[in-house]
Amino acid sequence: MSEFRWSVRVYWEDTDAGGVVYHAGYLRFMERARTEWLRAAGIAQSVLAEQNGLVFVVSRIQLHFRAPARLDDELQVSVRLAQARRASMELEQQIVRGGDCLLTASVRAACVTADTFQPTPIPQGLLEKLNS
Amino acid sequence: MSEFRWSVRVYWEDTDAGGVVYHAGYLRFMERARTEWLRAAGIAQSVLAEQNGLVFVVSRIQLHFRAPARLDDELQVSVRLAQARRASMELEQQIVRGGDCLLTASVRAACVTADTFQPTPIPQGLLEKLNS
Amino acid sequence: MSEFRWSVRVYWEDTDAGGVVYHAGYLRFMERARTEWLRAAGIAQSVLAEQNGLVFVVSRIQLHFRAPARLDDELQVSVRLAQARRASMELEQQIVRGGDCLLTASVRAACVTADTFQPTPIPQGLLEKLNS
Amino acid sequence: MSEFRWSVRVYWEDTDAGGVVYHAGYLRFMERARTEWLRAAGIAQSVLAEQNGLVFVVSRIQLHFRAPARLDDELQVSVRLAQARRASMELEQQIVRGGDCLLTASVRAACVTADTFQPTPIPQGLLEKLNS
Repeated sequence: MSEFRWSVRVYWEDTDAGGVVYHAGYLRFMERARTEWLRAAGIAQSVLAEQNGLVFVVSRIQLHFRAPARLDDELQVSVRLAQARRASMELEQQIVRGGDCLLTASVRAACVTADTFQPTPIPQGLLEKLNS
Repeated sequence: MSEFRWSVRVYWEDTDAGGVVYHAGYLRFMERARTEWLRAAGIAQSVLAEQNGLVFVVSRIQLHFRAPARLDDELQVSVRLAQARRASMELEQQIVRGGDCLLTASVRAACVTADTFQPTPIPQGLLEKLNS
Repeated sequence: MSEFRWSVRVYWEDTDAGGVVYHAGYLRFMERARTEWLRAAGIAQSVLAEQNGLVFVVSRIQLHFRAPARLDDELQVSVRLAQARRASMELEQQIVRGGDCLLTASVRAACVTADTFQPTPIPQGLLEKLNS
Repeated sequence: MSEFRWSVRVYWEDTDAGGVVYHAGYLRFMERARTEWLRAAGIAQSVLAEQNGLVFVVSRIQLHFRAPARLDDELQVSVRLAQARRASMELEQQIVRGGDCLLTASVRAACVTADTFQPTPIPQGLLEKLNS
């Protein structure tokens, strides 16, 4: 399956006193890319929550940090759908700066009901949009 | 009226590449102190939202930054109710480290409905708890 | 003087359990706009810190929140240089969504030394770039 | 080896529009616990950076989210040193609320030089403090 890419700029808010991006900040960058990947497929999560009563939540993450990003860096964050299950998706994500890979991650996004966070099947139409 | 104080520690998450606390982080510290001031008066905001359909939102802030806080600092964040109006409160807040005042702020917290964010009167019982 | 505008998208990271953007999040949006305003004038703050030993810090803020932003909103954040002093600038900022003004702010950005945070004059060349 | 525990309260800043703690927020909670675990052993990271030129950075994380935390929750965040290597430590962390485990994580913290982020041996005295 194809790869989606989203550009992210590093601002002061993202850095810490070590002079680099605070480690939890990369999770925010990865989530922006996933949100834009869904949006590019015509899926707005605010609409999904209100009309379908569904939200995607991260249930597992594996992160491997290779090199730090710094203030003013422009990063490319990728999303690739590695596997779709009935109620969850496995996503492969990378953060790169120029030719350097700064971070690789595997993320499981589970589909749950917006009110009680119970696992629920991913709507068939949503997967079709993501695969088209 | 008396002053409430809440202690906050500075972690990596709060700092930026300048080596100091990121300016928006102080707003988070001030909000923790306001939440604990309400809690000390027996008011949990999650209960207020669910049972009364009310939330407090910040509608105005004046901030004066005097000196920066740094990693590992232990800060005292104060809250003083300066004035209570029908649907809002004026709060005076300070952040101090030892004998040094790092920040002074005036915050207007407005009482609004949780669903549509319309201004609504502060429940009388709540103000009584805060003043007792 | 002319106005600079920067577009910001609201992600999950920016929202809180009230269903709206967490109040401190707007400060992050305003800082992104200020950073891009400087960048548009050819000024990268990472270079300013390393080569000139200077950083801009927020020393005063006045914020007036008018209406909340929500998930998936696209916001326009403006920056206008209202006044330049020897060692600080007064900036007027707004956050708008479509035709609605969500927030107005006055921000004083002070020029300080990167190591000891002492006030120091804004380099003349920098102001010329901002005014051109 | 024994387990260290640190208590964390959930504030508005930690939540998102789903009504639960934003997933990256748990990383902040885990880092606070690691910082306090070091502090309890007499190790302040600001001193470590200034005097020894060392910082610990997260190089790998495995996260398994089991249930969400919500506003006003009081959480216990644990840290257990699973393995110490020459230049890194493997830590097992959990976040629990009452009797419920919300999250389990494995975190590799690597010791690097503060200026260039090169791997460097953990000082022997530091490991002795952590094991005593």
